Amino acid sequence: MTAEVVELIEGLCTTRAIRRFRDEPIPDDALATMFFAATRAPTGSNRQPFRFLVLRDGPGAVEAKALLGRSFREQWAAKRAHDGYDAGSGAAADSPKARVAAAMQQFVDRFERTPVVALACLVPWRGLDPTVGASVYPACQNLLLAARGLGYGGVLTMWHAPVDAELRRILAVPDDVFIAATVALGRPEGHHGPVRRRPVGELVFDDVWGRAAPWATEPPGTRHTGRPPGAVTDRGGA
Amino acid sequence: MTAEVVELIEGLCTTRAIRRFRDEPIPDDALATMFFAATRAPTGSNRQPFRFLVLRDGPGAVEAKALLGRSFREQWAAKRAHDGYDAGSGAAADSPKARVAAAMQQFVDRFERTPVVALACLVPWRGLDPTVGASVYPACQNLLLAARGLGYGGVLTMWHAPVDAELRRILAVPDDVFIAATVALGRPEGHHGPVRRRPVGELVFDDVWGRAAPWATEPPGTRHTGRPPGAVTDRGGA
Repeated sequence: MTAEVVELIEGLCTTRAIRRFRDEPIPDDALATMFFAATRAPTGSNRQPFRFLVLRDGPGAVEAKALLGRSFREQWAAKRAHDGYDAGSGAAADSPKARVAAAMQQFVDRFERTPVVALACLVPWRGLDPTVGASVYPACQNLLLAARGLGYGGVLTMWHAPVDAELRRILAVPDDVFIAATVALGRPEGHHGPVRRRPVGELVFDDVWGRAAPWATEPPGTRHTGRPPGAVTDRGGA
Repeated sequence: MTAEVVELIEGLCTTRAIRRFRDEPIPDDALATMFFAATRAPTGSNRQPFRFLVLRDGPGAVEAKALLGRSFREQWAAKRAHDGYDAGSGAAADSPKARVAAAMQQFVDRFERTPVVALACLVPWRGLDPTVGASVYPACQNLLLAARGLGYGGVLTMWHAPVDAELRRILAVPDDVFIAATVALGRPEGHHGPVRRRPVGELVFDDVWGRAAPWATEPPGTRHTGRPPGAVTDRGGA
């Protein structure tokens, strides 16, 4: 299968979270390209403190995926109830809310069969604060974009957090290393396409906080998010 | 001027920090495309807590750029001395170290003339910890990549930090909003090209921490970083 050629800007605008994967491994050469692209991302002072620990079918992977799968199922069950995914419009099977819930359920139910799971880690060079993410999350984004460029897809999650201690024991991750994200990757069952976000004028300000940028227009036909379940309270913007 | 068409993976692998800008504004339509692409980035639960505050030539921008310029010059002067940029190979004007230092000096000296400065902000929905960056730094990376796709370039810095309080007063940024990064953007004086990183086998592990992934190969001709001045101590990897 030859991947389509994806133009850069188009790729940025059409890479969305993929949680339903085919039972198909990612070949070594595709993985090499994805992680090469991931590691080209910028970091503070070009320190490159990120490390990707890639889990496929080895003994570490099997044990870690089982642990993560249990954690993910628990996290999703709690979120599904807490955020009311089955209430309101979620009761209709073809509503956006119900479709998200179905994809999430499949994601966690089949987690152990996820073709590739990568732990994005950060070797600290100073204390951990909210800015350290600038040296690891751009690499995660490059990874997801590179996957898109090769016909794959994935999603970044934090649901490893409840089992962080056990996970690092299984995989010999040093105590001081920060596990910054879990990235699941594979061949999509569905497809990429335009993502839904808030109107760009609510997210981009001009010259002073809260003033919608008049030049911040959107391509015709751009579709917007409603407030997702459990979303942040509205703040700022016109 | 028509921008070249950049393929997604190639764009990921050839976007590097740009600090020398031509005296040339970024047109509204290019800015709109860049920030539209930036705001397509993923965030936790699709909350979209990021906001970009864009500084061009307005009254807020003029005052904020002047404040930032002073801070950037102080930060660079301290880093230049502390990290020994003028010592060793830095004494030779054509060494990589000296070229980086010259670009940095020009960047801070001309900071007020930077065509576009964007503050990447985050409206907190919970306490700030090292994971919140997963909902703002991917958008910053999309912004830098989109700039690349349109023939522009930029760099992400944290040198607003010493003047954070004064900056938010000038721009009316609410106290609880986290200013996560300053992104400078413009038309490059130089050009993009292959970035230099550590060998990918030092950054990508397979199945257990510290085991270099055997499949993590690099394209022929890939050039590697030496340890940059002030870099993190070596850790992990083969």
